[in-house]
Amino acid sequence: MNVLEERILKDGIVKEGNVLKVDSFLNHQMDIQLFDDMGKEWKRRFEGKEINKILTIEASGIGIAVAVARHFNAPVVFAKKSKSINIDGDMYVAEVESFTHKTKNQVIVSKKFLGPDDHVLIIDDFLANGCALQGLISIANDAGATVEGIGIAVEKGFQVGGQVIRNLGFQLESLAIVDGMDAATGTITFRK
Amino acid sequence: MNVLEERILKDGIVKEGNVLKVDSFLNHQMDIQLFDDMGKEWKRRFEGKEINKILTIEASGIGIAVAVARHFNAPVVFAKKSKSINIDGDMYVAEVESFTHKTKNQVIVSKKFLGPDDHVLIIDDFLANGCALQGLISIANDAGATVEGIGIAVEKGFQVGGQVIRNLGFQLESLAIVDGMDAATGTITFRK
Repeated sequence: MNVLEERILKDGIVKEGNVLKVDSFLNHQMDIQLFDDMGKEWKRRFEGKEINKILTIEASGIGIAVAVARHFNAPVVFAKKSKSINIDGDMYVAEVESFTHKTKNQVIVSKKFLGPDDHVLIIDDFLANGCALQGLISIANDAGATVEGIGIAVEKGFQVGGQVIRNLGFQLESLAIVDGMDAATGTITFRK
Repeated sequence: MNVLEERILKDGIVKEGNVLKVDSFLNHQMDIQLFDDMGKEWKRRFEGKEINKILTIEASGIGIAVAVARHFNAPVVFAKKSKSINIDGDMYVAEVESFTHKTKNQVIVSKKFLGPDDHVLIIDDFLANGCALQGLISIANDAGATVEGIGIAVEKGFQVGGQVIRNLGFQLESLAIVDGMDAATGTITFRK
């Protein structure tokens, strides 16, 4: 069991509707020492990959990405959520549906900061149905960048997102894959 | 001239309407080494202050706050922007107007993560009219927390925000205070 799985068992809270609250250490209050340990682990798992840019999405991906970036000595670019329909030609755009908020957002990345020379590690806090991640991959593809790997903190293994991404051939490294949760007992089952 | 001021002169772009674009290193693409240097400088300026929590606001404050937090060995809490009018009683709420986007947002922080024992360093990327910062101070006050200091990357010295906050007696440390910009010549004048 890794440091993130241990922390989820200690401080994660299971709510009805397959909701896992990790806001005390991951995506509202953020434990920087934990993030650093997660960065070390991803560095180990992506050993040998030439990564020169970390790509994430606002808001809760940013903190993890910045902590991780130190281990790869690479800058972070975060995709911005945009409501405006008038995006000018200087932006890569992808449509992203939020599982939590049931809303659609456009996410945008300036063309200045992603291009064919970039070898990208995508980082995010959660993977469920995979919409946010598919948007980031789409943006990397539009830019002609190479996605070297994907690092997710918590994957909901009982939803399709992870399977889709692995079927597409990406190296997806989720530090904690939750295969089941029980709100009545508070039990969390991780994939081995 | 400090490392942030030097970087602004090198890569910042002045646009009409007193807009300073720093998105290549500060708030879209993020230079992690620069953020680390900024964290060291704030650590020096807030020497002797007992800081146990970094408070910031999504989205562009988060990256800087996480890099800074390492130097204070403290967790980060970020205020979330919320459109919902049904905020339950578990949240501190403040109203924040955005200078850039001309919109009003509620920002919220869970009561679980801020309280009377907290000695807070507030971090953000920009200070102009100070609305976001006033919202964060209001939330810290509601929580009974002590604001030990405020670290801002870029302060627009020709707007009122900085003066208001200093008049209120806070230790406000802006790493770059821009007193004037000229879009025609690209000139940027920093306060000494």
